Amino acid sequence: MVENQLETLTVVKVGGGVLEDLVSLAGFLDRFVAIPGLKILVHGGGRVATKLSEQLNIKSKMVEGRRITDADTIDIVTMVYGGLINKKTVAALQARGCNAGGFTGADMNLINASKRPVKDVDYGFVGDVTQVNHQLLAILLKSGITPVIAPLTHDGNGQLLNTNADTIASEISGAMSDLYAVSLVFCFEKPGVLSDPNNDNSLIPELTAVSYQSFKEQGIIHSGMIPKIDNSFDALQKGVQQVIITSASTLDVNAGTRISL
Amino acid sequence: MVENQLETLTVVKVGGGVLEDLVSLAGFLDRFVAIPGLKILVHGGGRVATKLSEQLNIKSKMVEGRRITDADTIDIVTMVYGGLINKKTVAALQARGCNAGGFTGADMNLINASKRPVKDVDYGFVGDVTQVNHQLLAILLKSGITPVIAPLTHDGNGQLLNTNADTIASEISGAMSDLYAVSLVFCFEKPGVLSDPNNDNSLIPELTAVSYQSFKEQGIIHSGMIPKIDNSFDALQKGVQQVIITSASTLDVNAGTRISL
Repeated sequence: MVENQLETLTVVKVGGGVLEDLVSLAGFLDRFVAIPGLKILVHGGGRVATKLSEQLNIKSKMVEGRRITDADTIDIVTMVYGGLINKKTVAALQARGCNAGGFTGADMNLINASKRPVKDVDYGFVGDVTQVNHQLLAILLKSGITPVIAPLTHDGNGQLLNTNADTIASEISGAMSDLYAVSLVFCFEKPGVLSDPNNDNSLIPELTAVSYQSFKEQGIIHSGMIPKIDNSFDALQKGVQQVIITSASTLDVNAGTRISL
Repeated sequence: MVENQLETLTVVKVGGGVLEDLVSLAGFLDRFVAIPGLKILVHGGGRVATKLSEQLNIKSKMVEGRRITDADTIDIVTMVYGGLINKKTVAALQARGCNAGGFTGADMNLINASKRPVKDVDYGFVGDVTQVNHQLLAILLKSGITPVIAPLTHDGNGQLLNTNADTIASEISGAMSDLYAVSLVFCFEKPGVLSDPNNDNSLIPELTAVSYQSFKEQGIIHSGMIPKIDNSFDALQKGVQQVIITSASTLDVNAGTRISL
């Protein structure tokens, strides 16, 4: 069977922190717009939501270092992620000639999720992705739209759910792999996965399932990087062609850490 | 020439106040979903933005009874209109089997505006609509999407602008009249245009340009109703087939006030 030549699609995930700072936002968006071909941007939350909660005297409830999304908090993140960060990013992309459209997972039923089941901890209004409406994303891309996705999903019964942006990027990338040759790029403040988080020269240029396991066992890769890398392997297993973890300040897919099965 | 049989499209504008109250929201959305054919919902702002500004100690600057949209205020309304109200409405419509997508005018470049020129008063980040991307709205409608539009536009240079929701509804209706047989329905707390605002039985069932002029001269129609009715006549002049001002609690296009040229 001759493989079809699929059109390329780049899914970029950027942390909310990059988008909050006007200088880093401008540079990042310049680089994002310069990526050739079809693109989707997934953004995280960041500190604005925490700051707004503090100003409104809404206490962030934490359990084992993880934030609980109660009724007040889902309203806050809907305002900040779905409103402020998403729409400012869209307007800034429009100014760069990129026809961006900002969406949550509730919009056009793009991302369905189920509320995380209560086991030891009730995380509140937190969603685990169950389905990505890849056909509608393809219609948008064909219409010249660059989707900008906020880290919010819905349960189909009227409830918005706070959802990890790395997971959303991974799930979208996997779902779009039926239709496109997908590259997934996670970008953040660091140049990639580091063997020493305090030394930017300690970049690990490639991670395979085997070397990842070894780095984890040695305690070299730990805490916050683990879900990001797990999301990378999930994406590859769903047919994503390449996954890169790289710096938001270069958005260079030839630098950073390449994840391979 | 035989007139083409255009598909019908109903554009409903609802005040933010209706959407803020969970009970009135549920009833309104049930009635909105029951409207046959293609639909677009345009929503206003409401008191949540004012309340949030107060909680954050951001003073609403008013000049001649009109709010000035300064830099803090455009952020607040982006959060509340573009985030909270828009996304909650979308999620609630999704729960009713209506595939809603929530957008500002910046999203997909749907509504361009120019910042209102400073004459006697600088209204700040307030936009006057210059163009509606009716082709893209048509693509969304054809894809089974019900657009839910927040009262925000953009200037194409990266600036979001606060924009009157009645005007947005009128401009969208006018622009869509090339492609559809459009009905525009303004709904709010009252049964329609009243000759005595304190008497719900004083409904004016029909307004023509001539009778409107007369009511204005007699001081029977005044203040906030005037821009709404001006927007109605603008829409009719752009080819909208019917304009109704009616109650959000019935959404009955056979009741209320019918505006005719």
